[in-house]
Amino acid sequence: MAEAQVKRLGVVLYPGFELLDVFGPLEMFGNLPGVIEVTMVAQQAGPVTSAQGPSVVAEHGFASCPRLDLLLVPGGIGTRAEIDNPVMLAWLAERVAAAEIAMTVCTGTALFAHAGVLDGHRATTNKMMFKWVAEQGPKVHWVKEARWVEDGKFVTSSGVSAGIDMALAVIARLRGAEMSNMLAVATEYEWHQDAGWDPFAKVHGLV
Amino acid sequence: MAEAQVKRLGVVLYPGFELLDVFGPLEMFGNLPGVIEVTMVAQQAGPVTSAQGPSVVAEHGFASCPRLDLLLVPGGIGTRAEIDNPVMLAWLAERVAAAEIAMTVCTGTALFAHAGVLDGHRATTNKMMFKWVAEQGPKVHWVKEARWVEDGKFVTSSGVSAGIDMALAVIARLRGAEMSNMLAVATEYEWHQDAGWDPFAKVHGLV
Repeated sequence: MAEAQVKRLGVVLYPGFELLDVFGPLEMFGNLPGVIEVTMVAQQAGPVTSAQGPSVVAEHGFASCPRLDLLLVPGGIGTRAEIDNPVMLAWLAERVAAAEIAMTVCTGTALFAHAGVLDGHRATTNKMMFKWVAEQGPKVHWVKEARWVEDGKFVTSSGVSAGIDMALAVIARLRGAEMSNMLAVATEYEWHQDAGWDPFAKVHGLV
Repeated sequence: MAEAQVKRLGVVLYPGFELLDVFGPLEMFGNLPGVIEVTMVAQQAGPVTSAQGPSVVAEHGFASCPRLDLLLVPGGIGTRAEIDNPVMLAWLAERVAAAEIAMTVCTGTALFAHAGVLDGHRATTNKMMFKWVAEQGPKVHWVKEARWVEDGKFVTSSGVSAGIDMALAVIARLRGAEMSNMLAVATEYEWHQDAGWDPFAKVHGLV
């Protein structure tokens, strides 16, 4: 029954998502066929325009999206609009409840915070936009200095490129550090294995 | 005439391109509106499926693609088929000749090598696939240990994540290191500024 152990990862797209928030983690999660199966999802199926311009195809709209074991929400300038999108927030709350692991990158954390699902949990986000994101969830225990934060099913990461390290940490949790190391070597990526590594908290005056 | 200085970057897509080879550099080039304008191009316009599954939209087919100042060719498993695609090789040769800067990431270098445009030039590529790529260009001066290599208009990088460092180096060449540093800080990316930094050459037994 090895097949039953394949985890389905849903990556949420919306207009103005940040490219590397999506494709940094997907470079890692997407190179594990038989372990993780990737599904791109948006409110409506079809091409979704990123903050940087290029469009990526969502295979599923929210309504038709199959059950997700893992959920990943990117950040980007589009979060500014999505925190006021009740359809997005309700769908996220429902899918977070059913997921085994719920991940955010960068300002994607603002969507979980605004949906209320992070209340009482520890979380981090982009260091440049920290104040704005923290305002979306006054009941969240915000961690100012962290590459990523794991708290139960939630794994939230700092800005943009931090999503790559978070993905490798999640893969290590699911399948062991050797698998993450194999991916890092194959992609010639210098993996930050310490969740507390965060020089950018200081750069942005948070500590 | 500031507008005249906007550079148009064409990013080449083909079936089986590697996600981070495209979106690592685009995270940097794509966040410079007014400096760099990004165009996604493939043999035919429309969605193109990556090696990892997600599809990205090519706005232009080869025939309708406007003049490109900068050209970026990703690697990925799809290069195995594209080295035998005469339409791809001829188009690349034509666009390289007209470009100010011609970049490759990872096994994308195999396409330039097989097209003959790198003959007599220094270049590097993915360290795990080095032997196969080098066979595509016996007249290229292959550099085994390098994060990226600059030789005239050509800038070739090592595997996958090395494209991010290459992009920042090219932006520094075009607009100064301060602009690259600003991008690295905003994306919380630990920038490798030394083109000679390459622990993966040793990991893969090349040195």
